[in-house]
Amino acid sequence: MPGKNVPPPLLYADTERSADALYFGRVNVPDAFIAFGRRGRKYAVVSALEFGRVRKMSDFDVVLPLEPYLKRAKELWPQRKPGAAEVIHLLAKEYHQSRFTVPEDFPAAVYEKLFELGLDLTVADGALFPGRETKTPAEAAAIREGNRCSALGFAAAERILRASRIGGRNLVSRGRVLTSEILKFAIEVACLEAGAVSANTIVAGGDQACDPHERGSGPLRPHELVIVDIFPRVGASGYHGDMTRTFLRGRASDAQRAIVDAVRAAQLAALKAIRAGANGRDVHGKVVDVFTARGHVTKHTPRGSVGFFHGTGHGLGLAVHEPPRMNGTVDHILRKNSVVTVEPGLYYPGVGGCRIEDVVQVTAAAPRMLSRYHYNWEFR
Amino acid sequence: MPGKNVPPPLLYADTERSADALYFGRVNVPDAFIAFGRRGRKYAVVSALEFGRVRKMSDFDVVLPLEPYLKRAKELWPQRKPGAAEVIHLLAKEYHQSRFTVPEDFPAAVYEKLFELGLDLTVADGALFPGRETKTPAEAAAIREGNRCSALGFAAAERILRASRIGGRNLVSRGRVLTSEILKFAIEVACLEAGAVSANTIVAGGDQACDPHERGSGPLRPHELVIVDIFPRVGASGYHGDMTRTFLRGRASDAQRAIVDAVRAAQLAALKAIRAGANGRDVHGKVVDVFTARGHVTKHTPRGSVGFFHGTGHGLGLAVHEPPRMNGTVDHILRKNSVVTVEPGLYYPGVGGCRIEDVVQVTAAAPRMLSRYHYNWEFR
Repeated sequence: MPGKNVPPPLLYADTERSADALYFGRVNVPDAFIAFGRRGRKYAVVSALEFGRVRKMSDFDVVLPLEPYLKRAKELWPQRKPGAAEVIHLLAKEYHQSRFTVPEDFPAAVYEKLFELGLDLTVADGALFPGRETKTPAEAAAIREGNRCSALGFAAAERILRASRIGGRNLVSRGRVLTSEILKFAIEVACLEAGAVSANTIVAGGDQACDPHERGSGPLRPHELVIVDIFPRVGASGYHGDMTRTFLRGRASDAQRAIVDAVRAAQLAALKAIRAGANGRDVHGKVVDVFTARGHVTKHTPRGSVGFFHGTGHGLGLAVHEPPRMNGTVDHILRKNSVVTVEPGLYYPGVGGCRIEDVVQVTAAAPRMLSRYHYNWEFR
Repeated sequence: MPGKNVPPPLLYADTERSADALYFGRVNVPDAFIAFGRRGRKYAVVSALEFGRVRKMSDFDVVLPLEPYLKRAKELWPQRKPGAAEVIHLLAKEYHQSRFTVPEDFPAAVYEKLFELGLDLTVADGALFPGRETKTPAEAAAIREGNRCSALGFAAAERILRASRIGGRNLVSRGRVLTSEILKFAIEVACLEAGAVSANTIVAGGDQACDPHERGSGPLRPHELVIVDIFPRVGASGYHGDMTRTFLRGRASDAQRAIVDAVRAAQLAALKAIRAGANGRDVHGKVVDVFTARGHVTKHTPRGSVGFFHGTGHGLGLAVHEPPRMNGTVDHILRKNSVVTVEPGLYYPGVGGCRIEDVVQVTAAAPRMLSRYHYNWEFR
């Protein structure tokens, strides 16, 4: 919850799209609903469809049924189609609470109507719940569990890659040409078995991997780097894991070996720089320094970029990307107990892409690893 | 695109959370990015991380790199942390376009800053892209494919239920007590094999199913109704399927049989009422009539609701829930080629819950079925 002089939070969101809404009430609600704070208590207003479940299973102190408010709003404003804004207005009057803080992603339509209805809204400058940035031991454990699922995915992918046969330009697995899709399927099943959903898994080989957000498709080739990025969401907790490994089936070239070695060295340099009070921009600078020292150049061209052209890491929790950020464009002082990914990468069409990603919790000293999988990558 | 006198669209969203953004550019972008229309052309502004891929694979006519705009914004406003609003302001000046329509869920923080910067924004009253409500043949085919994945999930669940053995209060499958989790795993694997991700699958038995959004957990019991609701997202297209069947392993009671029969009869009554020009509220009324005629009462109590207390259906496409709605609270005239779910349900603790859901495309005559799975439900 925001501090004493900050107006209490007001949300209108579903918990699939809003990690804030899930953090606030600790219950899954698939359609947008109203939630707010008042004098340290948490209120939710939900439809009959959600009422019983939210009442039983959430962190909300007060759960109100939506329908009576909608009915009153219709009586009060017969001309307009009453919705969230009108209901919030009624609640504000009933609870004598007309000042709220809304998240940056609060819907503009509701914001605009509430302004017209006279509510005093402040848009949060940054996080609505700054507490989300630092993680409790239970939250760190939930993230560790997400990374355990990622690691199960790597194990499944590695097993198939190692067992595959090199047949000319193809890898052959159980008589089939091995593809990104086959590896993704094995990874996603491994995550499901462990209770997590891995959506948008990346298995990208060769030049495909040089677009860091390309998910990958089609045949995987021998002697090519394959980036495998797995960020599953654990069903029970809603928290994510997020890890990346880069594999190669066959024999690596010197150029491939050089970028893999550089990326791992850069990751170790970043890990060494991460501690409470450090600036994320400086951590990112350590990665850049390693690449520069080894002669791995970054270039932006009209058709795309090569080298290292994304951030070194991001916060991880109920969202895959959340504060803090560690990149070259913003200053972000790392707080004790925040959880970040550490994921340098290098991308050169013709050579391939390599990214290695782990997750750590920031402490006053060396960061605590929340992810574990080995760093062997060349499967001859 | 909006009509001639409507200002062109402006979006700031990622395509995971915003179906509008995916519809506009037809490319997956996992982090929020700026997109807008101008004189019938589509513009996107993306970071170096996305640039090459979006340029190659999207429907955008012009793809601009974000970084130079951020740099200019920093020079212009050295005091503030420049972000999306400042970049949009620069673009508006460069392209002589200061009026835009933004979606209802446009982020309030950007909306507020753009207002201060003097842009003339209109929040869409309803859909930003009204064309999303009606589906082209290709979109209908993509939804049919999603439902094919749902049906594969039912087949997997049915196979396991039929093969399970009744052992006292439990169902036993391959020596293990059969649980919601086991069925969900089999369903989700079946969807993955077919190229779709089924998140939040519902497999809820007995009284658990009386909360329609309860996903279900733990042992499934013999002689209890089990609601199975599968709404996978097809990876290749981004479109969803959404189907529900209710199964029972063992012998149904008269009360269970009565609600299953009523729900199917109500679904048929709704299907008969669906055609272009019909009001969704009237379609919903047909369902209510069937339940009323058969004596299935709906009640709202302080601890929750029983009977039929959700809408009859909703639009389906890039989002699982989108216009049109068919429920008892809003008038919504169904348009030709829109796609809706038809999903009446009855929920009575002690008896259990039943929901049957199919998907149709609205035509001038009888609706076109976009989903197919049989309606047998009692597996003795």
